[in-house]
Amino acid sequence: YLINDLFIKLLHLFSVSANGGNILVWYTEGSHWINIKPVLETLINRGHQVTVLVPTVSMFMNTSEPSRFHYEPFNVSFSMEDIELIYEDLLHFSMYEMDQMSYLQIYIRFMDLMKTDLYYTLKYLDGVLKSETMMKKLKQGNYDVLLADPIYLGSDLTAEILGIPLVFTLRFFLAHNFERHCAQLPAPPSFVPAAMSKLTDKMNFSERLWNFLFYALNDIVLNHILWKEVMGRADIWLMRTYWDFDFPRPFLPNFKFVGGLHCRPAKPLPEDMEEFVQSSGDAGIVVFTLGSLVKNITTEKGNIIASALAQIPQKVLWRYAGEKPDTLGANTRIYKWIPQNDLLGHPKTRAFITHGGTNGIYEAIYHSVPMVGIPMFGDQPENMIHMETKGAAVIVDLNSMKTEDLKDAINAVINEKTYKENILRLSSIYHDRPMSPLDEAVFWIEFTMRNKGAKHLRVQAHELTWYQYHSLDVLAFLLAVVLLLILLFIKTCSFCFQRCCGRKEKTKRKAE
Amino acid sequence: YLINDLFIKLLHLFSVSANGGNILVWYTEGSHWINIKPVLETLINRGHQVTVLVPTVSMFMNTSEPSRFHYEPFNVSFSMEDIELIYEDLLHFSMYEMDQMSYLQIYIRFMDLMKTDLYYTLKYLDGVLKSETMMKKLKQGNYDVLLADPIYLGSDLTAEILGIPLVFTLRFFLAHNFERHCAQLPAPPSFVPAAMSKLTDKMNFSERLWNFLFYALNDIVLNHILWKEVMGRADIWLMRTYWDFDFPRPFLPNFKFVGGLHCRPAKPLPEDMEEFVQSSGDAGIVVFTLGSLVKNITTEKGNIIASALAQIPQKVLWRYAGEKPDTLGANTRIYKWIPQNDLLGHPKTRAFITHGGTNGIYEAIYHSVPMVGIPMFGDQPENMIHMETKGAAVIVDLNSMKTEDLKDAINAVINEKTYKENILRLSSIYHDRPMSPLDEAVFWIEFTMRNKGAKHLRVQAHELTWYQYHSLDVLAFLLAVVLLLILLFIKTCSFCFQRCCGRKEKTKRKAE
Repeated sequence: YLINDLFIKLLHLFSVSANGGNILVWYTEGSHWINIKPVLETLINRGHQVTVLVPTVSMFMNTSEPSRFHYEPFNVSFSMEDIELIYEDLLHFSMYEMDQMSYLQIYIRFMDLMKTDLYYTLKYLDGVLKSETMMKKLKQGNYDVLLADPIYLGSDLTAEILGIPLVFTLRFFLAHNFERHCAQLPAPPSFVPAAMSKLTDKMNFSERLWNFLFYALNDIVLNHILWKEVMGRADIWLMRTYWDFDFPRPFLPNFKFVGGLHCRPAKPLPEDMEEFVQSSGDAGIVVFTLGSLVKNITTEKGNIIASALAQIPQKVLWRYAGEKPDTLGANTRIYKWIPQNDLLGHPKTRAFITHGGTNGIYEAIYHSVPMVGIPMFGDQPENMIHMETKGAAVIVDLNSMKTEDLKDAINAVINEKTYKENILRLSSIYHDRPMSPLDEAVFWIEFTMRNKGAKHLRVQAHELTWYQYHSLDVLAFLLAVVLLLILLFIKTCSFCFQRCCGRKEKTKRKAE
Repeated sequence: YLINDLFIKLLHLFSVSANGGNILVWYTEGSHWINIKPVLETLINRGHQVTVLVPTVSMFMNTSEPSRFHYEPFNVSFSMEDIELIYEDLLHFSMYEMDQMSYLQIYIRFMDLMKTDLYYTLKYLDGVLKSETMMKKLKQGNYDVLLADPIYLGSDLTAEILGIPLVFTLRFFLAHNFERHCAQLPAPPSFVPAAMSKLTDKMNFSERLWNFLFYALNDIVLNHILWKEVMGRADIWLMRTYWDFDFPRPFLPNFKFVGGLHCRPAKPLPEDMEEFVQSSGDAGIVVFTLGSLVKNITTEKGNIIASALAQIPQKVLWRYAGEKPDTLGANTRIYKWIPQNDLLGHPKTRAFITHGGTNGIYEAIYHSVPMVGIPMFGDQPENMIHMETKGAAVIVDLNSMKTEDLKDAINAVINEKTYKENILRLSSIYHDRPMSPLDEAVFWIEFTMRNKGAKHLRVQAHELTWYQYHSLDVLAFLLAVVLLLILLFIKTCSFCFQRCCGRKEKTKRKAE
């Protein structure tokens, strides 16, 4: 009686070869790379072969380290210094310049940065799409699926040329432009805050107005640079959030929310670090990092931060590559690198001071550690607003921050019970789901390989124009019909009226 | 390091008592009861206590049979004959009358049936909500969750009064009225066909127009009888479809698609039945049933069907309670009852002739058996259109059907390869998902009990009015601003023009 089941299993076996599938991974950087790595590791454990496209110049993807991935390097015509300069430029703009600029200046500067970004994107694509040797090699690779973050443009076109399914992994794009226009994700501006608008799902009239305009302006400004058609062919969108972090919103059958897939239980700390942590006693420790991109801050900021840390009863482990501040207290130790996840999972940890990257926040949620956020750029301000709205964090502004502010924020998240309660609630949502996010991500990548895509999850909205989608042609037709009926009614009335009056006049005339 | 995990597990233990949770199930009938039973069985296996509200008069819920459920009977002031009369009335209307009626007549008859339905619904509620003894008993029951099909009204109000979470299980409501207005499910009329409109997700202009009007008319007609506010508080909506059956569409985080949760591998057949099945040889068998509600059809129809069946090479097992037709062939056997799932899972089964109920279709998908549909009422015509659109079924119209039509349809689904290929593809979608639908349904019911609801999955749209939801107030404001600016511009222009001309005139006058 199990012939059908057997048949289906055989189908799976044939579509993905006995030695597992052949997975191609688009180049990526920074936190995206950190996030996708555990998925790739798991795929390798499950017998698949993983090939990663890497530019010869990369800040985060180190091909010289021994690795289980097969790296496929491609040439780019710029240097590491160029890339580092761009990041510094972006950081400086976000952290210091923006506050002193008018909206127009910000807009001009932003478009400038976008232009630079596009310039480098095209240089990357020269190394892949425009390189005949590379494309030939990729074609011969017989890949079953391409896995990519759509922020790094060009993967859609490559998958199209190779004729293979495409799986996206995405945190978000500005104003959900990719998600809305390419994947047809519905986003009513009345309760779905646009990404980067810094709004929550609870909005008053003026916030809803701003959200509406934010979507509309982004549609106008960015619409022409998007390759809707090609990107729209992605089979699965693995979104790097879940409802512990994001506000509930409508979504589509091919959207899978796998936020925090990199999270894992803590491992023991190095011996000297454990000793320092244990020396904190009942007061416990505070973990502090501003992320992998920000290496140092101004001496002034460094001193403000250090003197705030010196005034709390906890011991502090601070990941910092800059010069040692003068005001550094005896309770604070500076490290070039810290095992962040293992520290957050340590029972003595009371708070996490973070720049608000998605990966770090998810580790704090996983281990239920309340946060103090010092957000700087990208999705960080927005991420911290999510955590603040859910009552699990206090936000401190880097530019206007005084020693008192930081000290008060740390004391609040540690001593006021609600912060711990709220992060425990979020942690419970994270852990209490039918399937771990890592398993879910792996399942849908393998599904796409087995079934050569996921067509049955694709909404018909892809085949509609924007005015058809919103039924504007239907509305126009109905309006036309109503107007016609009104016109007919008026004409008929006036005709009857004329005949009636005409007759009366005739009668009158006769009477005369 | 596992203190957090432990804490969360302890939380679960405390919120649901050590002996499992206490589940209250709202009364239901027919296929809904058949569908929910496997969930309740599994919940009992997992240590929960299940109490089912049953009216003293019920067609399907037999409280006298030995059962693991605890039945809680409530009084209703009508007889079994009354109920059977209503069903017969409904069947007669749907199967025979409707074809000879004008739209206006259908509408009047439909509103009449709705009125009768509401009349009986209130009688049911007299036995629960209006009965002091029953409500007192339910309050003392200390239930953790109420599980209900919202089609049987009143569960929302009961959950509200008892102050317990609410989980809905639903196939659909006419034009998705419950889903759209109570749960805030988005349904763009351009690609989401309204339930009962008999449309698919691929629509041309006139179909989109009809779909738009179908939603709009239903909004106008049914809006006033819905208790939006109360029904909107449901924590989880377990939908009885999946993307093997339904067209992909936008949905919300608290919508879980658990279609086909009752499906299970086939068990061996009774000995004599197995013998008959084996006697079919390579030709195989056809399984035929018109569902549990339709006991017999007219003698004329019976003869048409029987003579069609007599002309096919397969052996036929026909579930039929009516009189034996004269034209019955030697290859056809009539049974009062058949083990439908076990027959569909039999390797000799070539086709399934069905009325198109959701449960039966799902068993056919599970066992990959192509279908011939003879739909009659309710969701059946629509269900069969889904299967026909996906290329896994042929539809035959009961009223206009000739012997040839049925014979050709059966031969087509058996002999044309595409039908088998398509049902195999749907079956693969059914089986190839991260978690079985039964497990998923059980998970979310238990989740709701553990967490006393599922607030984090609830969209903020619930707090908006309809014009806020569609940003109509924002649009009106923007329109007003634009009009004001135009008005200001015109006024300024005319003012300048006047001054200018005025001066000229003055100059002119001076010159004169």
